[in-house]
Amino acid sequence: MLPIVKGILEGERRSLAKAISIIDNDERDSHRIIGEIFSKTGNAKIVGFTGSGGAGKSSLIGKLVPNFQALGYRVAVIAVDPTSPITGGAILGDRVRMQNAIDDNKVFMRSIASRGALGGVSKSLRNVIRILDAAGYDLVLVESVGAGQLEVEISKIVNLTAVVFTPNTGDNIQAVKAGLTEIGDLYIINKADIEGAMALFNSVLDLIGETERKPVVLKVSAKTGKGIRELATAIDKILRARTSNYKEKERKMLELELKDMVLNRIVQRAISMLNENDKYFLFVDELASKKIDPYQAAEKLAAVILK
Amino acid sequence: MLPIVKGILEGERRSLAKAISIIDNDERDSHRIIGEIFSKTGNAKIVGFTGSGGAGKSSLIGKLVPNFQALGYRVAVIAVDPTSPITGGAILGDRVRMQNAIDDNKVFMRSIASRGALGGVSKSLRNVIRILDAAGYDLVLVESVGAGQLEVEISKIVNLTAVVFTPNTGDNIQAVKAGLTEIGDLYIINKADIEGAMALFNSVLDLIGETERKPVVLKVSAKTGKGIRELATAIDKILRARTSNYKEKERKMLELELKDMVLNRIVQRAISMLNENDKYFLFVDELASKKIDPYQAAEKLAAVILK
Repeated sequence: MLPIVKGILEGERRSLAKAISIIDNDERDSHRIIGEIFSKTGNAKIVGFTGSGGAGKSSLIGKLVPNFQALGYRVAVIAVDPTSPITGGAILGDRVRMQNAIDDNKVFMRSIASRGALGGVSKSLRNVIRILDAAGYDLVLVESVGAGQLEVEISKIVNLTAVVFTPNTGDNIQAVKAGLTEIGDLYIINKADIEGAMALFNSVLDLIGETERKPVVLKVSAKTGKGIRELATAIDKILRARTSNYKEKERKMLELELKDMVLNRIVQRAISMLNENDKYFLFVDELASKKIDPYQAAEKLAAVILK
Repeated sequence: MLPIVKGILEGERRSLAKAISIIDNDERDSHRIIGEIFSKTGNAKIVGFTGSGGAGKSSLIGKLVPNFQALGYRVAVIAVDPTSPITGGAILGDRVRMQNAIDDNKVFMRSIASRGALGGVSKSLRNVIRILDAAGYDLVLVESVGAGQLEVEISKIVNLTAVVFTPNTGDNIQAVKAGLTEIGDLYIINKADIEGAMALFNSVLDLIGETERKPVVLKVSAKTGKGIRELATAIDKILRARTSNYKEKERKMLELELKDMVLNRIVQRAISMLNENDKYFLFVDELASKKIDPYQAAEKLAAVILK
């Protein structure tokens, strides 16, 4: 057993932090670490929080953590930071606000970067969760910003997705319609103390009320603390109610993960084969001189690579 | 020659609209249409406009079009609409505003949906541009919303990327840093008549001034029309200055496109092989019972598929 794995299993924070860096940077030891801890995983429940920047997700999570602890959970938080797809530089979000809210040594908190390809985040996130799971954290909260493909990816990894809306960040029916209606198990109207909260609450209720899944819609205020305990209880209740489905859901997740990993290896292999194959550049020449069209070229070149 | 191809080459609008639908929905005739028009393409210049929702891109494009026409261009506009990654339903943007601004039969305008996988948009967009190119449009303006992977994809397809910022949509240094500093050849501060425009202009200038590419930064107001003619002239100038590099850039784009198309075929093939291979589900069983870890399973299964 690697010394770092021993540290992880003992919940030693420095080992955890180091292991997460190794996973997040996809360093060589990733495979061995995951290989050695994998059999110890499968206990953690994972809750995703998503919504626009400024919806107050970090503060909300900060207030939820002690409530989850009161319910008996060992809580860890992972924030997925949006990064520039080119430079890979993470925007430093309002992590500080969350950190301030949680003055507690018992919580483990880390940001990971949503760099590059979408598949990259999923892979990193799945394995970071495994590290925390093996270390004994049984509730992992995953925060991400936005309403795009990334959130859909994350919703496939978590057991429950909470979507956070707030009246003052331009969230309106259009934003609500833009894709977050499908992924949420729970909708949270944050900043319920400010103007427009009730109207937004009603809009979300109307839109979501039509769907068959009938997700819970709740109003809270991270600032005043109103509704936070009820929210923690609601999440706990949903997680408990779903316990019977976990094995099935975990199998589905593993199926998807294995497919992603295999396809990734095949694509890497195909890229090397392409770059080393003279035919690739010959076809590009023929395309540039319009002697062949892209569909024909792709058909022929794929046949060469697949043969 | 397909009758629709004859219509395209004659610039007949109904044929154009129909051909674009066929391409955008990836219908069976896509291959044949592109195959038949491909040798007639390569004349259009393509300019991408990106920026947050509310930055006024549609109005700006609406005002630019007559100026480009005055410079001798036949102009077409493609708007890439953000869609829910799950339902595929497009948000109806402010196309109407653009349509109102351009009261001219000589412009061709179409929305395409940015559905599903990122690669899908690129493929659709490249081929829709080819249709317009073959129909004789020599300037294609592509509008898209956002600062994500999609815009990076689009920047690889266009000859010039213009990034639109505006003081009143929450654009600030952080937004500017979030990934749009790398893709722009031209930065436009729209709504230059409102408060905060000068500060934003200076910020962009500072941030971009540091970069080696030295892109142009301009203030305009689509509302008052101020600076619009100068913007059209600046874009025209950049396009003309780059003419010598087009062949090389087009080759690079074709190289990338061919790679995407070949990899796509290989992935489709690999997915079918996976779904039909019993070993896939056996490995999922072993993963679910923690007898094997994901890296080992992926390694072994990839070897089975690749053999």
